[in-house]
Amino acid sequence: MPKPWKKHSAALRSDHRIFQIVAEHFESPRTGKMLDATIVVAPDWVNVVALTDAGQCVLVRQYRFGTDLVTLEIPGGIIDPGEAPRAAAERELREETGYAAERWTPLGSIAPNPAFERNRLYSFLAEGCTRVGVQQQDELEDIEVVLVPEASLDQLVAEGELDHALVVVALQKLTLLRRGHTIR
Amino acid sequence: MPKPWKKHSAALRSDHRIFQIVAEHFESPRTGKMLDATIVVAPDWVNVVALTDAGQCVLVRQYRFGTDLVTLEIPGGIIDPGEAPRAAAERELREETGYAAERWTPLGSIAPNPAFERNRLYSFLAEGCTRVGVQQQDELEDIEVVLVPEASLDQLVAEGELDHALVVVALQKLTLLRRGHTIR
Repeated sequence: MPKPWKKHSAALRSDHRIFQIVAEHFESPRTGKMLDATIVVAPDWVNVVALTDAGQCVLVRQYRFGTDLVTLEIPGGIIDPGEAPRAAAERELREETGYAAERWTPLGSIAPNPAFERNRLYSFLAEGCTRVGVQQQDELEDIEVVLVPEASLDQLVAEGELDHALVVVALQKLTLLRRGHTIR
Repeated sequence: MPKPWKKHSAALRSDHRIFQIVAEHFESPRTGKMLDATIVVAPDWVNVVALTDAGQCVLVRQYRFGTDLVTLEIPGGIIDPGEAPRAAAERELREETGYAAERWTPLGSIAPNPAFERNRLYSFLAEGCTRVGVQQQDELEDIEVVLVPEASLDQLVAEGELDHALVVVALQKLTLLRRGHTIR
């Protein structure tokens, strides 16, 4: 079984608000060779599969700087310092969509990309969602709320309309939960 | 519908071998306000759900610098400059596991994280996999090949043993393909 490498040092290279670049110096446990690795260190994230009792899923459409495209996603965002994942999920759902949920179920957590990213995504199922107010966006946000039938989500993933790996993860965890799996 | 922002400039901030940090200057189409965004620009990636005719899935266990943990994943990696995604998938499967496949099926592509990452992941199904030689690792790699029953993959995702968002995406695309969806 492969062994972990030994970390000798870590140094902040640059800070970009939503993530930091950290240079780390590792020693191979097998060969003793040294390697410099650059890690994207970010706060943990949340996302939410938000369902209404009428069988609709609450999605958000917004412009994304990374892909330079307008995307369709489930609500989500960055967990604030000291904030619990569930509280962040409730907050992001409320801010981005104006919706609140009656019932919350954790859908586990996952590493977005173990190769070079150091943070976790926590996913949640929010059921009994209803609109309780207006969106709370800052002046730079421009999020459109889109309701789609829950039954169409698989098709939206297959055809690439839901074009976001972390959205697919949350939907897949929900599928597994409903098939009786315990989700960690 | 939200409109794309207008990009006024882009400048390379730092180069980290497997990704670059690029600072871009955007103008909001709604308010005219300017915003600086930092983007992780990376080569496109591939990953492979590699199945044997005996119903086993070929996985790799390796140490990952990002999470500083030993992870279990499907094979995958970076597409070389000028390389086709399918060729990269064949190469990564061969190098990391020593396996080759008889039949290849594309499982579409996805944005790993539209918020701040600019690249795509191409996933493939590789069937009829057999071991054709030894792994081709460099002196810094230490990859263990692990075969698991294909029927156990859902359970490995649910319990977090497959703890990698991009692995879950490939497995979910395969599930959708088998349910008759056309995958893009």
